[in-house]
Amino acid sequence: FSFCTGAMDNRSFQQGSFSSFRSSSSDEDLMDIPGTAMDFSMRDDVPPLDREVEEDKSYNGGGIGSSNRIMDFLEEPIPGVGTYDDFNTIDWVREKSRDRDRHREITNKSKESTWALIHSVSDAFSGWLLMLLIGLLSGSLAGLIDISAHWMTDLKEGICTGGFWFNHEHCCWNSEHVTFEDRDKCPEWNSWSQLIISTDEGAFAYIVNYFMYVLWALLFAFLAVSLVKVFAPYACGSGIPEIKTILSGFIIRGYLGKWTLVIKTITLVLAVSSGLSLGKEGPLVHVACCCGNILCHCFNKYRKNEAKRREVLSAAAAAGVSVAFGAPIGGVLFSLEEVSYYFPLKTLWRSFFAALVAAFTLRSINPFGNSRLVLFYVEFHTPWHLFELVPFILLGIFGGLWGALFIRTNIAWCRKRKTTQLGKYPVVEVLVVTAITAILAFPNEYTRMSTSELISELFNDCGLLDSSKLCDYENHFNTSKGGELPDRPAGRGVYSAMWQLALTLILKIVITIFTFGMKIPSGLFIPSMAVGAIAGRLLGVGMEQLAYYHHDWAIFNSWCSQGADCITPGLYAMVGAAACLGGVTRMTVSLVVIMFELTGGLEYIVPLMAAAMTSKWVADALGREGIYDAHIRLNGYPFLEAKEEFAHKTLAMDVMKPRRNDPLLTVLTQDSMTVEDIETIISETTYSGFPVVVSRESQRLVGFVLRRDLIISIENARKKQDGVVSTSIIYFTEHSPPMPPYTPPTLKLRNILDLSPFTVTDLTPMEIVVDIFRKLGLRQCLVTHNGRLLGIITKKDVLKHIAQMANQDPDSILFN
Amino acid sequence: FSFCTGAMDNRSFQQGSFSSFRSSSSDEDLMDIPGTAMDFSMRDDVPPLDREVEEDKSYNGGGIGSSNRIMDFLEEPIPGVGTYDDFNTIDWVREKSRDRDRHREITNKSKESTWALIHSVSDAFSGWLLMLLIGLLSGSLAGLIDISAHWMTDLKEGICTGGFWFNHEHCCWNSEHVTFEDRDKCPEWNSWSQLIISTDEGAFAYIVNYFMYVLWALLFAFLAVSLVKVFAPYACGSGIPEIKTILSGFIIRGYLGKWTLVIKTITLVLAVSSGLSLGKEGPLVHVACCCGNILCHCFNKYRKNEAKRREVLSAAAAAGVSVAFGAPIGGVLFSLEEVSYYFPLKTLWRSFFAALVAAFTLRSINPFGNSRLVLFYVEFHTPWHLFELVPFILLGIFGGLWGALFIRTNIAWCRKRKTTQLGKYPVVEVLVVTAITAILAFPNEYTRMSTSELISELFNDCGLLDSSKLCDYENHFNTSKGGELPDRPAGRGVYSAMWQLALTLILKIVITIFTFGMKIPSGLFIPSMAVGAIAGRLLGVGMEQLAYYHHDWAIFNSWCSQGADCITPGLYAMVGAAACLGGVTRMTVSLVVIMFELTGGLEYIVPLMAAAMTSKWVADALGREGIYDAHIRLNGYPFLEAKEEFAHKTLAMDVMKPRRNDPLLTVLTQDSMTVEDIETIISETTYSGFPVVVSRESQRLVGFVLRRDLIISIENARKKQDGVVSTSIIYFTEHSPPMPPYTPPTLKLRNILDLSPFTVTDLTPMEIVVDIFRKLGLRQCLVTHNGRLLGIITKKDVLKHIAQMANQDPDSILFN
Repeated sequence: FSFCTGAMDNRSFQQGSFSSFRSSSSDEDLMDIPGTAMDFSMRDDVPPLDREVEEDKSYNGGGIGSSNRIMDFLEEPIPGVGTYDDFNTIDWVREKSRDRDRHREITNKSKESTWALIHSVSDAFSGWLLMLLIGLLSGSLAGLIDISAHWMTDLKEGICTGGFWFNHEHCCWNSEHVTFEDRDKCPEWNSWSQLIISTDEGAFAYIVNYFMYVLWALLFAFLAVSLVKVFAPYACGSGIPEIKTILSGFIIRGYLGKWTLVIKTITLVLAVSSGLSLGKEGPLVHVACCCGNILCHCFNKYRKNEAKRREVLSAAAAAGVSVAFGAPIGGVLFSLEEVSYYFPLKTLWRSFFAALVAAFTLRSINPFGNSRLVLFYVEFHTPWHLFELVPFILLGIFGGLWGALFIRTNIAWCRKRKTTQLGKYPVVEVLVVTAITAILAFPNEYTRMSTSELISELFNDCGLLDSSKLCDYENHFNTSKGGELPDRPAGRGVYSAMWQLALTLILKIVITIFTFGMKIPSGLFIPSMAVGAIAGRLLGVGMEQLAYYHHDWAIFNSWCSQGADCITPGLYAMVGAAACLGGVTRMTVSLVVIMFELTGGLEYIVPLMAAAMTSKWVADALGREGIYDAHIRLNGYPFLEAKEEFAHKTLAMDVMKPRRNDPLLTVLTQDSMTVEDIETIISETTYSGFPVVVSRESQRLVGFVLRRDLIISIENARKKQDGVVSTSIIYFTEHSPPMPPYTPPTLKLRNILDLSPFTVTDLTPMEIVVDIFRKLGLRQCLVTHNGRLLGIITKKDVLKHIAQMANQDPDSILFN
Repeated sequence: FSFCTGAMDNRSFQQGSFSSFRSSSSDEDLMDIPGTAMDFSMRDDVPPLDREVEEDKSYNGGGIGSSNRIMDFLEEPIPGVGTYDDFNTIDWVREKSRDRDRHREITNKSKESTWALIHSVSDAFSGWLLMLLIGLLSGSLAGLIDISAHWMTDLKEGICTGGFWFNHEHCCWNSEHVTFEDRDKCPEWNSWSQLIISTDEGAFAYIVNYFMYVLWALLFAFLAVSLVKVFAPYACGSGIPEIKTILSGFIIRGYLGKWTLVIKTITLVLAVSSGLSLGKEGPLVHVACCCGNILCHCFNKYRKNEAKRREVLSAAAAAGVSVAFGAPIGGVLFSLEEVSYYFPLKTLWRSFFAALVAAFTLRSINPFGNSRLVLFYVEFHTPWHLFELVPFILLGIFGGLWGALFIRTNIAWCRKRKTTQLGKYPVVEVLVVTAITAILAFPNEYTRMSTSELISELFNDCGLLDSSKLCDYENHFNTSKGGELPDRPAGRGVYSAMWQLALTLILKIVITIFTFGMKIPSGLFIPSMAVGAIAGRLLGVGMEQLAYYHHDWAIFNSWCSQGADCITPGLYAMVGAAACLGGVTRMTVSLVVIMFELTGGLEYIVPLMAAAMTSKWVADALGREGIYDAHIRLNGYPFLEAKEEFAHKTLAMDVMKPRRNDPLLTVLTQDSMTVEDIETIISETTYSGFPVVVSRESQRLVGFVLRRDLIISIENARKKQDGVVSTSIIYFTEHSPPMPPYTPPTLKLRNILDLSPFTVTDLTPMEIVVDIFRKLGLRQCLVTHNGRLLGIITKKDVLKHIAQMANQDPDSILFN
C-alpha cells in the first residue's frame, strides 16, 4: 500500500489510487509506437493525385460555413464530449472558446427576459462572490489551524487546569496570579511533571516532562501519517509542486477534493504540533486551493470549465499565502510569480480581493491575539547604514548556499526514498524522524519552542523590558540618548543564547532535509526562514559587539559613535530569513514584498533586496531550479516551465512523431472511412487524437478529432441514430454527397471535429514551438511541410525533448 | 506647422515630422487593394497539378536542414535585413529568436577564450547594469524636476533676497527671523509687490501680485509650448498612450529620443510651474522611458533588438512611477498592469530593482526636504469603522462618475481640437487656458498653491499645532482622552475653507478637461487626485461634524461616543483621491498599492480597495475604456488591447485578405520567378511581405518573405554578386537544380525566407486569432484551407476588424 509524498512517488502511479495513470499517460502520447523503417524522402514516391481536384469540394459550402457553425453550437451537445479523463492535459484554447460561447449565449439571451437578465448579471458577479467565499473559508480555516496548532503545541508541555482547551498563553491570561515579568508562569498552567509527580523541580521531573514531550510528538506524528495514509494520500507534502502542475493545465482528480481538504487541515495541525521541522505555509496554499476548487462546484461557470477554474485556483493560492503570512499583496505576487501559469490580468484584481478578504477574516479571528494582521510584526527604530550592506550580502551568500545545498540533498534523499525500500515504510520513517527531532529538541529551549515563535523572537529588537536571554545585555543607561537603547555589551545570557542558537542552526539544517518530502503535510517557508533568521541573528549580534568594542575602527567611526544604537540584530535576522527563503524557493519580488509586509517597514526594502538578489544569484549559479521545480521534475509531472527559455537549436521536425523510420502518421480521411475502419484504428492505437485529412495521398489537413469524443460519438450514434452500422461511412465534411439507395445511413461527425488545429511547419525552431505551447496552452500541434501533414507534436513530446536536451533520460523523467 | 498632442493630431500624420506615416502605414497593410470579382468557389476550377509531385523535391535535403540552417545563421547577414521602418509593427517572434541566437552564440564562444568568457559574463550582467543606470538617471532627473518646479512655482509669488535660487521654504529656513508659528513669513522673502511698490498691504499691492502671478504663469506656459513646438513635438502630453503603443510593438522613432528627453524635462518644469491643472507623474514615466531608450544604445544586446529593448522600457516605466510617487512596488505593478504588453516574469525583478534604485536616488536628492521617500506621507491615528465603508463607497461612486465624465468630455474636446480650426493655434490655446486658470486661481488660496501641496494639506490629519484654516476647530481640551485629538466642532476657518474648497473643486473639474491634451507635457494623476481629495475632505468634514453633533444617532452611538476621535477627514480625502484616480485610469491593484505606499499604512487597504472597486465598476458601466485607451483609440494607434476579450463570433475567413471578390493573393513561387518578375511585383504592390508557395496552382505554402528584406537582398545581389541580371531566377528552395550552361546565374534567397510562418485555418474563430496575435506578438498570419494558402491576416486587419465589430468606422479609426 503506497501513497504520495511531497513528491508523489514511483509506485503510486502504478498502484492504488494512481492505477489509471500509466494507461492514460500513454493515451496522451499520441505517437509513441516503436518504429519501422520509413524515411521522409520516401514521400516523393507518393503518386500524384486525381483526388486533388475533388478534395476541395467540401469548401463549396464555405460561404455559409459561419452560420452553419453557429447552428452546430446550438445543437444539443452529446454528453461527455468536451470533458477530460484523469491525468490528462487540458486544451486551454478549447476551454476558453467554450467559455466565450457560454458567455455570448448568456449575453444574447439577457435581452429576451428579465429572468435571463438577472441570470446574466448574477453570472457576471459570480466570480466576485466566489472570491469572497474563498477568502472567508480559507481565512477561517487558517484561523482554526493556527488556534489548534497553538493549543496542541502547548499540550506537549503541559495542560491548563482552568480549562483544558486553553493554551499556555490564554491559560495565564485568565489567571489572577500573573505579573508582567512572568507572563507565562501561572498556577493554572501545569506541566506534565506537576500533574504526574506533583513537582516541577529536579531531574526526575525533567525526565517526566522530556518523556511526555517526546510521547506527544510521536502520537501527533503517528496520527498525522496514519490519517494521510488511510484517507487522503494526496494530503501530504506542501502541495505547491502539484498545484503548479494543475494550474499549468493538468488534471489530477481528487487532489483538490473535499477529503483532501479535511484530512490536510487535520493532519497539518498534527504535523505542526508534533514539533517537526516544518511549516504550515505551503500546505495552507493547498488548503486554500481545495477551498477554491470545492466552491467552484457551486457555480456553473466554473464547475464546467477547466480553464476558468484554474483562474479561480490562482486567486485561491494568493489567498493561501495571504493567510499564511498576513500579507495580501505578497500573496498576490507569490501567486503571480511562483504558482500561476496563465494569469490574465483580470484575475490580478480578483486575487487581490480574495487575498484581502482572507487576511481580514483571519484578523477578525485573531489567532495571534495581538490584533495584527501579520505573523511577525516588528518595529525597528534605527535606520540601517550603507556599510551594513556588506554583512547583508554575506547573509545573501549564506542563504544561496543553504538553498542550493538543501535542494540537492533533499532531492537526493527523496530520490532514495522513491527508489529504495525506504519508501515502503512511511509511518516508520515519520516516527523515527519525529523521535529524533523531539529528543534533540527538548533540551534546547530554542528548538523546543515552535519555529514561528523562534523566528518571532529572533526578529525582535531588544527593548528595555525584554526579559529573554537574547536581550540579556549589560545595561549602561547613562550612555543612552533620547528614548533609544544604545548598543550595549552582551551579557552572559546572550552568550549562552548564541551557543544554543548555533546548535539549533545545525539541527534545523540537518533535520529539515529529511523532513521535507515525508508523507505528512509539510511546508518549507518557516524552516527556511528559521535557518536564515538564526544565522542572521548570530551575525547581527557579532556585528553589534564588534561595533561596541571597536567603534573606533575606520569602518565604524564615521557612523557609529559610542553610546549610539548602530546595529539592530533583529534586522539581520530578518534579512537572513529572506535570504534563505529566497535561496530555497527562488522567489524574488514576492519574497521582498512578503518580508516587507510581515514587518511593516518600507525602509528596509533595500537590505532585503540586496540579500534576496545575492541569494538568488548564488543559488542559481549552483543549480537553476527552485525546490518546487526540483520536486516537479523528480516526480515527472508534465509541467512546462514558463520562466526558463528553451535554449537549443532544434527544429519541430526533430521532435515530431512519427520519427524517421517510424510508420506513417495515423490519420482519418474526411469522407471515405467506415465506422468499422475507425473502430479498428481506435482499438489498435492508443493515441488520444487523430488528424483528419482530405485523403491519405494528399495529406491535406482538415481538422483534428479527439479519441474520447470519437468513441463517445460513435457509441451514441449506434444507440440513437437508426441504422448506423459498421459499414456506415463517417463524414467529417460539411455536406455528405447524395447516396445511392440501399446504402447504410452515413454518420456525420463534423461537430466533434476541431476545424482549427494549430499547425507549424517542420522547420519551425523548437524555441518557437515551446513558446506556442506555453503561451497558448496547447495540448498538441500538427506539423506540416509545404502544406502536407507530416506529423504531430504533443505537450509530452515537448517535455521529453526538453528533458533530453538537458541531458536527462526522457523516459525516466516523465511520469515515473 | 503642426505637432502632436497627448493626442498626436490628425495633420501631424500628414505633414512635418510624420510625413512618412501615411505611406508606411499602408505598407503595413499587406492586402489593401480594392477588389475585383473572384469568388472562393472558383478555386475548384484550378486544374490538377503535375507539379504536385515535384513540388516536394525541395524537401529532399530536409534531412540536413537543421545543420544547414545553422550555417545560414553564421553567414554574414546583409546589412539592413531584419530591421524595421518607422511606424511599423515589430515581429516579436522574430526578435526573440534573434536574441536567442545571439545569446547562444555568445555562450558557445565563451568556452573558447577568457576574453569571450568575460564578454559572456558582462553580457549577462549588462541588463542589471542598465537597470542601475536607468534608476540613477531617472531618479536624478525627477529630483531636478521637483526642485526646479518648486522654485519656479514660488517665483510666481515672489523672490528671495537672500539668494534668488532659493524657493520660499528654503529662503525662510536660512533666515534667523522666523518663528515656528509663521514658518513661511520671513524678511528675506519678498513678494513682487514688496519689491515693486515696497508694500504688501492694500488693494494695489494685491493687484500687483495678481498681475505678476498671471504674467509669470503666461511666460512659463508660452516658453513650454514654444519649446515643445519648435524642438520636440513628441514631448507633449502625458506620453503614456504612446508608450503603451510602443511597448505593444510599434516603432515611433524619436519618441523616446534624446531631444524629447531634454525638451520634455524642461517644459515639464515650466508647465507645472505655470499653475495649470496638470501633474508631472505621467510625463515622468515618459522621461524615464526616454532614459531607458537612450541608455539602451550603450549595450549591444538592447540596441539591436526591439523586443529586448521593450523589456527595458517596461522596467523604465516602473522606475518612472516609482519616482513620481516614491512608490517602487506600486510602480512595478503599474507597469505590469497598465503599461506593459509582454511582461516576462524575468523583468519583474529587474523592474523592481530599477524602481528601487530610482526611488533611492530621488530620496538622496531629497527634493521634498523631509527625508521621506513618498510624496504625501501621512499618519493617521485612528482606525476606521466598518460603517464608514458607506461614505467610502459613496466616494467610489463619485470617483467613477467623475472618471467617466472626464473621459467623455476630454475625448470630445480633443476630437474637436483635431477636427476643427482650434488645433491650428496650439500656442494661443495654451495661453488662453493658462490665463483663465491663473486669473481664477489667484484669489483662492487653495487654487493658488501647487496642486501637490493642496493634496498634501487635504490628506493631513489635523494636529494640535496645525495653524491652517482647515484645522481651525474650536478646541475643548477637557474632552480629549489620551494623546488623541477628539472630534471637535468646526470653527469659522473650517467653514470658509469648505467654501473655498468647493469652488476649487468646480474649477479643477472644469479646467482639467480642457488642459489634458494640450500641446504641453501634462499628467493626469495629480489633478484627478486633487478632485477626489477635495470631494473626500468635504465629505469627511461633513461626517465629522455630523458625528460630533449627532453622536447619539443610531449609526454613530455604537462606536462614536462624545469626545472620541471617530472620523479622520484626511482619510476620506485619501480614499476620494484613490477613487477619482481609479475612475480616470481604471487602475486596480497598482492604484491601491501606490496609495498605500504613498501613505504608509497597511491598515487602510480595505477602505481604499472598496472605493477603487466601486469606482471602477461605476466607471466601467458608463464606458469601458480608461483615459489612456481612449486616447489611443482617438489617435488610432495600432494597439491591440491585451485585457479586453474579443467577444464576437467571426472566423478568420471573414477577416483575411483577399476578401471575396478581391483579386488573388499576391504570392511568389519558390523556384520559377525571375528577378524582374519579383521587382515588378514589388513596384506594383505596397504589401510589406509576400508568401512564397511551391507553385501558384497548388498554393502550398513554403514560407514568408518581407518586402524590405527582399528589396535589400536583390539590391545587394545586383551590386555584389557577379552576373545577377533581370532574367536570373530567384530560388527560395534549399538546392537550386543544375542549370544548363549559358543561363544567367541564379539568386538564392532562402536565407531571408521565414520558413516558419504562422498559419491558421480559415475556420479558426477570430477570438483565437486575436489571442494568437496578442500572446505571440505576431505581425501577420497566413490563412489556409485544407492545406492550401488562401489569404493573410495582418495585425492591422485584426485591429480594423475589432473596430468594425465595435461599430466604429474602421478606416476613420486607424492611423487618422
